[in-house]
Amino acid sequence: MKSVDNQSFLRFLDRANQISSLTDLGQLLDQTLAFAFDIFGAQFGTLYLRTLPSNQQDEFELILKAIKEQGSDSGTYNQDVINQKVVLYTGPIMEALSQHKITETEIQQPFPLSTYVPLGELPVCPGTNMLILPLAVNDEILGSIHLYAYEPGIAETLSPFIQRLATEIDKLIRINAYQHYNERLKELIEYIGRIGSSLDRDQILKTIIADATELLGAEASSLFLVDEATGDSVLKIASNMDVLSIEEVRIPPGKGIIGATIQTGISTLVDDSTQDKRHYNRVDKESGFNTRSLVAVPLKTRPIALGEELGSTEERIIGALESLNKKEGAFDQNDIELLKTLANQTATVLQIAEIYSDANSLFMDIIKALAAAIDAKDPYTVGHSHRVSTFAIAVARQLGLSPDVIQHIRIGGLLHDIGKIGVPDAILLKPGKLTQEEYSWMKKHPEVGENIMSQVRMLHNALPCLGEHHEKVDGTGYPRGLKGDQISLLGRIIAVADVFDAITSDRPYRAGVSVEDGITILREGIGTQFDEICAKAIIELIQNGKIIPHLNCA
Amino acid sequence: MKSVDNQSFLRFLDRANQISSLTDLGQLLDQTLAFAFDIFGAQFGTLYLRTLPSNQQDEFELILKAIKEQGSDSGTYNQDVINQKVVLYTGPIMEALSQHKITETEIQQPFPLSTYVPLGELPVCPGTNMLILPLAVNDEILGSIHLYAYEPGIAETLSPFIQRLATEIDKLIRINAYQHYNERLKELIEYIGRIGSSLDRDQILKTIIADATELLGAEASSLFLVDEATGDSVLKIASNMDVLSIEEVRIPPGKGIIGATIQTGISTLVDDSTQDKRHYNRVDKESGFNTRSLVAVPLKTRPIALGEELGSTEERIIGALESLNKKEGAFDQNDIELLKTLANQTATVLQIAEIYSDANSLFMDIIKALAAAIDAKDPYTVGHSHRVSTFAIAVARQLGLSPDVIQHIRIGGLLHDIGKIGVPDAILLKPGKLTQEEYSWMKKHPEVGENIMSQVRMLHNALPCLGEHHEKVDGTGYPRGLKGDQISLLGRIIAVADVFDAITSDRPYRAGVSVEDGITILREGIGTQFDEICAKAIIELIQNGKIIPHLNCA
Repeated sequence: MKSVDNQSFLRFLDRANQISSLTDLGQLLDQTLAFAFDIFGAQFGTLYLRTLPSNQQDEFELILKAIKEQGSDSGTYNQDVINQKVVLYTGPIMEALSQHKITETEIQQPFPLSTYVPLGELPVCPGTNMLILPLAVNDEILGSIHLYAYEPGIAETLSPFIQRLATEIDKLIRINAYQHYNERLKELIEYIGRIGSSLDRDQILKTIIADATELLGAEASSLFLVDEATGDSVLKIASNMDVLSIEEVRIPPGKGIIGATIQTGISTLVDDSTQDKRHYNRVDKESGFNTRSLVAVPLKTRPIALGEELGSTEERIIGALESLNKKEGAFDQNDIELLKTLANQTATVLQIAEIYSDANSLFMDIIKALAAAIDAKDPYTVGHSHRVSTFAIAVARQLGLSPDVIQHIRIGGLLHDIGKIGVPDAILLKPGKLTQEEYSWMKKHPEVGENIMSQVRMLHNALPCLGEHHEKVDGTGYPRGLKGDQISLLGRIIAVADVFDAITSDRPYRAGVSVEDGITILREGIGTQFDEICAKAIIELIQNGKIIPHLNCA
Repeated sequence: MKSVDNQSFLRFLDRANQISSLTDLGQLLDQTLAFAFDIFGAQFGTLYLRTLPSNQQDEFELILKAIKEQGSDSGTYNQDVINQKVVLYTGPIMEALSQHKITETEIQQPFPLSTYVPLGELPVCPGTNMLILPLAVNDEILGSIHLYAYEPGIAETLSPFIQRLATEIDKLIRINAYQHYNERLKELIEYIGRIGSSLDRDQILKTIIADATELLGAEASSLFLVDEATGDSVLKIASNMDVLSIEEVRIPPGKGIIGATIQTGISTLVDDSTQDKRHYNRVDKESGFNTRSLVAVPLKTRPIALGEELGSTEERIIGALESLNKKEGAFDQNDIELLKTLANQTATVLQIAEIYSDANSLFMDIIKALAAAIDAKDPYTVGHSHRVSTFAIAVARQLGLSPDVIQHIRIGGLLHDIGKIGVPDAILLKPGKLTQEEYSWMKKHPEVGENIMSQVRMLHNALPCLGEHHEKVDGTGYPRGLKGDQISLLGRIIAVADVFDAITSDRPYRAGVSVEDGITILREGIGTQFDEICAKAIIELIQNGKIIPHLNCA
């Protein structure tokens, strides 16, 4: 063993300790190589890290992380070569690494130079000596330092100072990985929160595609939902694709990676989709997108508790989510886990959105059915309530009212005549003119409607549509004879919509008036029967063709 | 400097490298102390880690992590003393650490022995020499090694071998912290997913309390919601507390930590609640729970998108969540962040549950209002539909039917007579016997009801309640004259409920029969008018007092 003095030992130890406190991995690797370079007096050196051990035992995949050349701080090579990959199957480096052996050798033909650096040429001649220092932690090769034109004979003595930094490098790599994973988990939590705050299916779909793409660092993502009727998976949304061309994409049950993922519930990772026969490339063909790699996960809902009286829904797979083409590196197990969690949450949220939408539809459908039933008692008023609701919504939008007020008008318009349940058919259906007594019965329907619906707490804001649609701004209306602003805006809006539909419809005793005459009647009623703002708004809508009499409301 | 030979240097370096590859922090610390113990030939030694630097610059808080005594592997001291805390304000250790200085001293009076170890006595006499080796990374004190009765004069030479392990210890601590934090984030994701899959408010409240307690490693948690009417915060649920005694707890707006958290939206961490004047200790007093420390976070909802036509709700603070008494260690910033994320998600989910519950209530309320309006046309049938629904649900439960079938029966029972909208009042309200023609009008109501509601896609499964409640099992019923199993179970259930309510109610032309007579009529109708199973079920329920005629249905 060549002798190295105590002072040098302590200096080396001190320098290694200094280097070990670096918290940036790039600096730690650079300084480790520089340290080795200096203590071995080399002319040229490289430091590689091994990629995560794969299943292949007969190869080492190394990534170039640092280069150093004598007389130059950053080396003569462009930093572009950093992070280039070399795969070793044979040669002295492969041998040194698989045997965990410090190796002193000479560069000689026929080893291709690319075995040593991915640059194609070394700044040293064949015949130059070369030192291979494997970096290992707990018998796992972490990487390798290669020194060229170095001082021979001191490798055994001094390599422990280099090896001393291997555990530091290993730990810092793990800290960085945890930090990165940590950030991804936080990102996932943010995405889950965002998706979970929507009951709007279309918005959920748009959000999930953007989030999945971002979370996986992918080029694009797409989402398929199972069509209950056929069992096909139907492409619902995709990012970075031509939406027009993909609208018709259906994948038969079990077909391709998506079909298999949905059928088995097992996530799939495909490194090279051109080599994977399961890849169903019709989407690629139609969209012009070139899928190289992908992760596909099932959209599996959790059971959803609906409340004590309503039980819960069952866990099931409603579709699949896939992310395509990792921008940097390759998809891994973490990607699958993160995407799976996001997908399960999305599936559950989509189910909740559907349940909510169903509850709303149930309510709206029953109101529509009842309005239709009331209207249908008189063949001359079929469709009336639906038209009044539609006209009134148009007026409300024209006036810039908020979505919740518009919703009250939608419901109130449909229900404005519901009080006719309480009016005897003999009066309701009487063809001729009503007697005084019959008329006063008839005039009760706004209040009857209001009374019936006053039981419904959440309809309180819609009640004026029922109770005030026969009031007139000059105070001559019924049932209360309210004047001007005493009539709520909702009541005034329903009034113009109600009258316009009534006068343009045929009645047993007269034909409906023309649109022009209808406008005239509305205009002439401003200030006496109708509120000016509401009347002008509906007239403008009629003139613009946005309100059409006898609109066939489905 | 005392001379140490090359061989020893290399041996030390090699041993330090071996130790550095340990992945368990406890082992790494034990081995580091053992290493120092050996190279300095000490009789007794301790290793402390510093707790996270606090704001106080004039103290060092140290946690005992390893002890070693000559001739004993685990020391003569019980391992219980491990993790005991000492706070230093003065003395040689305090001085050595604040100056980052390797210090050789002697144990002497008047330093209390507890300055050195938290054990009260050292296994070495006063006058013994003592070496203090601060462990530092990047000028931050990480901990300290104390050796007693050691070989003097070699500290400067050999301490770099010990210092060499400081960065390894520091990195391993950080890896452990990241690992722990990652696990907590994953736990949080799991909890968020679970909470987000419920639309059942009570279940959400129960789940969140358990999850918050678990996530924060706390002894208990409690949740307050703002009472919109008064602005008070009302305790809704709490773990590990006597629920009976806390049911009345209301906190006035802005009062105490909970009130302040809700008012400001700022999270609060209280280390010692007995010292914090804001702590509103009425809950403690009433529950007998002793709050020592707490984290309180606001329950802030995200804006919830309700769908294109419905707009969205606004972000707001609906209450607060607090976790009490950390079981190990003290609450920290991570605890606040995790609980805040959980709380925000909970707030959003509670809002969604409320929106869903509102949509359901809106539907149920409107159905009830309509049923009541139909029943109210005839003073003798007031409350009939509600009673039929209630009786039919009881029968369905008795028969063990599923929640979704029961929901169809609930709705179908309320709506079974809705077809009477189409029956002229003259017939409906006629006091005497109906003519043949009037009766055939009357017999149309099941079909009319079915027709009206057939527009409502989601009520298809409830339609038999409307269409088949006047069918009889012998085929003599109307409108279709179905026999036995041709009548759906729903129709057969509504039939017994409908008849029992009708016969026990007063009518213009007769008084209602007694419960006993009602049972007799039901029993006699088995096989002709009534299905056997349904009739026996309702009879049993009547006999057990679970179905009471003229039940006042609110």
